[in-house]
Amino acid sequence: MALKDAKAGRRNEAGIASVLGILKQSFGERFQTGQSFREQHAHTTTYIPSQLPDGVLFAESADDVKAAVKVCAEHKVPVIGFGTGSSLEGQVNAPNGGISIDFSRMNRVIEVNMEDLDCTVEPGVTREDLNTHLRDTGLFFPIDPGANASIGGMTATRASGTNAVRYGTMKDNVLSVTAVTANGEEIRTARRARKSSAGYDLTRLFVGSEGTLGILTSVTLRLQGIPQKIGGGVCAFPTVRAACDAVIMTIQMGVPVARIELLDALQIRACNAYSKLNYDEKPTLFVEFHGTDETVALQSAQFGEIAAECGGGAFAWTVNAEERNKLWKARHDAYWASRALAPEMAALSTDVCVPISRLADCIGETQADIEAHGLLAMIVGHAGDGNFHVLLLFDDKTEEGIAVAEGFVARLNKRALSMDGTCTGEHGIGQGKMAFLEEELGGAVDLMRQVKHALDPDNIFNPGKIFHSA
Amino acid sequence: MALKDAKAGRRNEAGIASVLGILKQSFGERFQTGQSFREQHAHTTTYIPSQLPDGVLFAESADDVKAAVKVCAEHKVPVIGFGTGSSLEGQVNAPNGGISIDFSRMNRVIEVNMEDLDCTVEPGVTREDLNTHLRDTGLFFPIDPGANASIGGMTATRASGTNAVRYGTMKDNVLSVTAVTANGEEIRTARRARKSSAGYDLTRLFVGSEGTLGILTSVTLRLQGIPQKIGGGVCAFPTVRAACDAVIMTIQMGVPVARIELLDALQIRACNAYSKLNYDEKPTLFVEFHGTDETVALQSAQFGEIAAECGGGAFAWTVNAEERNKLWKARHDAYWASRALAPEMAALSTDVCVPISRLADCIGETQADIEAHGLLAMIVGHAGDGNFHVLLLFDDKTEEGIAVAEGFVARLNKRALSMDGTCTGEHGIGQGKMAFLEEELGGAVDLMRQVKHALDPDNIFNPGKIFHSA
Repeated sequence: MALKDAKAGRRNEAGIASVLGILKQSFGERFQTGQSFREQHAHTTTYIPSQLPDGVLFAESADDVKAAVKVCAEHKVPVIGFGTGSSLEGQVNAPNGGISIDFSRMNRVIEVNMEDLDCTVEPGVTREDLNTHLRDTGLFFPIDPGANASIGGMTATRASGTNAVRYGTMKDNVLSVTAVTANGEEIRTARRARKSSAGYDLTRLFVGSEGTLGILTSVTLRLQGIPQKIGGGVCAFPTVRAACDAVIMTIQMGVPVARIELLDALQIRACNAYSKLNYDEKPTLFVEFHGTDETVALQSAQFGEIAAECGGGAFAWTVNAEERNKLWKARHDAYWASRALAPEMAALSTDVCVPISRLADCIGETQADIEAHGLLAMIVGHAGDGNFHVLLLFDDKTEEGIAVAEGFVARLNKRALSMDGTCTGEHGIGQGKMAFLEEELGGAVDLMRQVKHALDPDNIFNPGKIFHSA
Repeated sequence: MALKDAKAGRRNEAGIASVLGILKQSFGERFQTGQSFREQHAHTTTYIPSQLPDGVLFAESADDVKAAVKVCAEHKVPVIGFGTGSSLEGQVNAPNGGISIDFSRMNRVIEVNMEDLDCTVEPGVTREDLNTHLRDTGLFFPIDPGANASIGGMTATRASGTNAVRYGTMKDNVLSVTAVTANGEEIRTARRARKSSAGYDLTRLFVGSEGTLGILTSVTLRLQGIPQKIGGGVCAFPTVRAACDAVIMTIQMGVPVARIELLDALQIRACNAYSKLNYDEKPTLFVEFHGTDETVALQSAQFGEIAAECGGGAFAWTVNAEERNKLWKARHDAYWASRALAPEMAALSTDVCVPISRLADCIGETQADIEAHGLLAMIVGHAGDGNFHVLLLFDDKTEEGIAVAEGFVARLNKRALSMDGTCTGEHGIGQGKMAFLEEELGGAVDLMRQVKHALDPDNIFNPGKIFHSA
């Protein structure tokens, strides 16, 4: 029942034993080696089997991280960062064993600079905690990957989510990070200026590196002013293509939509049943606009015209917060709604991203594939980015069921790549997509290996992820 | 009269002689070694002395670049990319000699994908050529560094300019590049999807690497819809601080200003004289809004209120294209206007960038420095980003005059760094700012060196730039 890229690696047993002893002595109760702690720090939400670390350090400061990395580097033992465990491609697994560094106690908001619209946080701060902290400042952090992930984890996987179409992804919203590198020292990748041409963009190199180049100890983020007014609504379309046409036209006309999410007919059925709604069971766009009374009204009217032109149904929009929250709660509950369709089955959430001109093709062919193979799978897309998720319900109790899921994921990725797309828009490579990365970028993956080897010559940082090292 | 970081490096005479012979044979008239060609490909616009390459290849295809890089790699001879030569920190100099690859003949727009709002171009396409090409598509490429730079050069230096406050910098607008790496092979850093979490962000690693990691052979860019309406105007303020307060409030309130440029009183005087205008000789903001009739009117009104609240004078805005062009022509001619104040002197354009809360402090202290040292220097800022330029007029004929300029630049950079700023917002490091980069990022520069050494072990790509190699 093992995924081939998730096979156990070589364990440095002597090194691990030494590190366990040293860390236990240094950190006492803050370093745990019990089975339940280890299991909690390796769970995955796919068919990738869990691979447990040998111990878990509950770090409380950058000094803790430096001390742990120095010990692990000396003994050539893996170090794996752990935020909230919501990654989807096996990113927190420990195929070679080693130490998990848990950031739940490094959850301080270090500073908020209101005039500069930025803040610096420890990696364990979650996005909801951050927004609660910012509540009275008039500012918010926009990136919303769905899960209440940690900022460190979101940075490491280059996360995005529903409103990336307006506010960008983590790569656009991280100004700087501090990280402990392989020599156990802490570096800072950039100053707090909004832009810089000062040397290589190490910030963006760390964003999305999935913990393979060092361990983050703080992240400086751009913030946004809370919009004076938020409006949104729902519009059903006869086909996925009609909905995608409306998305393309919206983007092309420069309507600054904040969210534009596509749910396919089956997903709508699941949401109706789970959230007690009665939307038409058709491909549907959930949209949201951020601005003032005037601009929200203008943009909603513009979108309504576009939707009508593309054959969409009535577009009812509202600035009523309660109605809006109900709508977006249904969107955010899509995962649970889908699982409720077949509670006995396992669920796998995977994502790809294509140029938006190919989104209708890619979703259409994927739906045909789902039907042809008799699968149960729903599609939800961050349509403005050309990014969509498939939630596949499958049998993870048998080799055959897993093979069916793996086959589907492989076809989905090949399809996206054939359309000049990417094998992951926001989940990352982890262990689950290593083969597709090679197919996607070919020789460029060798450059990644060279960078990895230069910065982490002993391969201690999250080994066995993104690519197989040289 | 030499800058210490621009000292000549070690020349590999035997290798250079071999490469000259081979390239002459392979490329005939397309490879030039005459003095005038060599001089044209090494000019700088600072006090950094020119350092000529030994030959210039007029590349016509990626295959030409691959062939040249292979020969240079084999003989360990430097290769330096050349766009239009508008870089400001000695980026095209050849301290160790070697080959300049001129991209003026690689100036094809390879494809434009209207539905996806992207295009792929060869590196020699200039931003004005690109926008001329796009004229009938309803799309445009927004980054405007002032000069009619090449897209390859803008990518290599992570350029930005007047409307980065709205559209971002090159890092935000390059989707992917192809580049020839040290083994002479071409890699592609990403697919054409709008976002991706597939491995290390090699695209952003190449953006801003100043030709030190490989030679770009194509760039895929995001495009924007041409706004239905553009409005703009000018507003004078009693002090730099009052103008900066208006900028901060504009950004904080989320008014999506497309340009917000600060000119100090002396710069306004120069512009008045040069462009026959009669603006008040006070710190002045030039602003521009992109949108529809309604949104431009709304945003202009919002800005007018903010300006008044901060003590600004009348804000007259217009959507008349002729008036607007006159206004921005004056802004773009600021360099020539300044030089006309003292045509016998040399001019040095340098930039720093600070968090916008510190912009008034940084400019104020810089003006005090200019006055205290009896210098002639004007300040123009991309105020929305906290980025500003000083144009210093100085005597480049004497050691003393150059020392005065170097002293001023050093104080300016230290000041910006003391405010958590960067030594360059958009010009890059080149040869001119290497010492400041070390001060700015400390140990992080060692990571850059490690990346450089991994990807270019023989240091053939634009050696002697950004940092001294290990």
